[in-house]
Amino acid sequence: MTVQRIPIIEKIMDANDQIAANNQKKLDDAGIFAINLMASPGAGKTSLILQTIRALAPDLKIGVIEGDTAPVTIDADKVLAEGMPAVQINTGGECHLDAMMISNALDQLPLDSIDLLIVENVGNLICPAAFKLGTHTNVLIASVPEGDDKPYKYTNIYRGLEVLVVNKIDLLPYIPFNMDYFRQGVELLNPGLVTFPISCSSGEGVTAWITWLQGRVKQQKSRGK
Amino acid sequence: MTVQRIPIIEKIMDANDQIAANNQKKLDDAGIFAINLMASPGAGKTSLILQTIRALAPDLKIGVIEGDTAPVTIDADKVLAEGMPAVQINTGGECHLDAMMISNALDQLPLDSIDLLIVENVGNLICPAAFKLGTHTNVLIASVPEGDDKPYKYTNIYRGLEVLVVNKIDLLPYIPFNMDYFRQGVELLNPGLVTFPISCSSGEGVTAWITWLQGRVKQQKSRGK
Repeated sequence: MTVQRIPIIEKIMDANDQIAANNQKKLDDAGIFAINLMASPGAGKTSLILQTIRALAPDLKIGVIEGDTAPVTIDADKVLAEGMPAVQINTGGECHLDAMMISNALDQLPLDSIDLLIVENVGNLICPAAFKLGTHTNVLIASVPEGDDKPYKYTNIYRGLEVLVVNKIDLLPYIPFNMDYFRQGVELLNPGLVTFPISCSSGEGVTAWITWLQGRVKQQKSRGK
Repeated sequence: MTVQRIPIIEKIMDANDQIAANNQKKLDDAGIFAINLMASPGAGKTSLILQTIRALAPDLKIGVIEGDTAPVTIDADKVLAEGMPAVQINTGGECHLDAMMISNALDQLPLDSIDLLIVENVGNLICPAAFKLGTHTNVLIASVPEGDDKPYKYTNIYRGLEVLVVNKIDLLPYIPFNMDYFRQGVELLNPGLVTFPISCSSGEGVTAWITWLQGRVKQQKSRGK
């Protein structure tokens, strides 16, 4: 039975990768730098997006694609309230975003006026890791209250990252979290992974993240021209 | 294409439900009360299991099935260190446990000497909700740092619950979490849901959870005899 199933799964992945490549071409043509923002539920994806918008506007225009498993617009509404374009994807219970969903969402965004696109994936440390979207880079938010053992347990998602954000460092005094143990787990999977320890509530560490982001947006703009 | 896919998915679910029913019969025959413990990563599943073992031993014998997506035995080792039988399931990247995994794990546990079985599902608020395991009840741990909007976003998992545990209430002074807003979201999906606010680190509220559990174990024992 396994032998029969594997080719079918490979075919689905090929189709997804094909659409992802088309998405990336569309983004490159528009000079947009795009990130796939992943995390478990409540790690601070929307908070980081809002902090990022506030730090970069009005110099940069940021588009946001919000992935949710339910038909709620809580997060998209927050982005719209900041004056930035947002598209809400309701996955209808599906546990991840895929390239086709992004393709449809891109059609609804004013790509010509966007500099940075942030895709907020569904809150999940497992399934999103398996699906390319066509974004340029994978960013994961780990959250201090989740505990320091997560890299040892959710290995696949850490392997495919370019950047790791460790959020809620303001809670470190109240929670047993061994940063050395956490880091060792990360190093096993993704040596030298660029990491930004931050607090979205206090603002600590956010500048370093913003500086990295500005560099990548600039790089992408210069490529497009 | 949708028309072709639906019957296949239904067949898979039927097979899973069939195995789940067999699992439940096996548990009933042994007089074991079994819970399916779900939560997002780092909400405190293993911490609650360890608190529960410490509160109920040596009066009750607790077996644990640990579900992880990676081949790590961090959680199972903690249960074994408490002197209780544990079986580790490595799902090989899969995002949830299913009934067949539980069936195999039950074969490796000393069912005759177990009173309570806790199945620690994979850390995920989406996929585990769709698969029956054969346990008697679904318990979800929500965690204060995840935020008060999770019932609005992860609706399916809240609908199928008998009990909700709200963990890390010791962090309420440091985090904006509106318990009324959270509760309203829960009530929309699962009116009157039995809820235990607790702190696994301070021990606050754990007694009420333990009392509920003792009642259900006793009930199951009396049914079996």
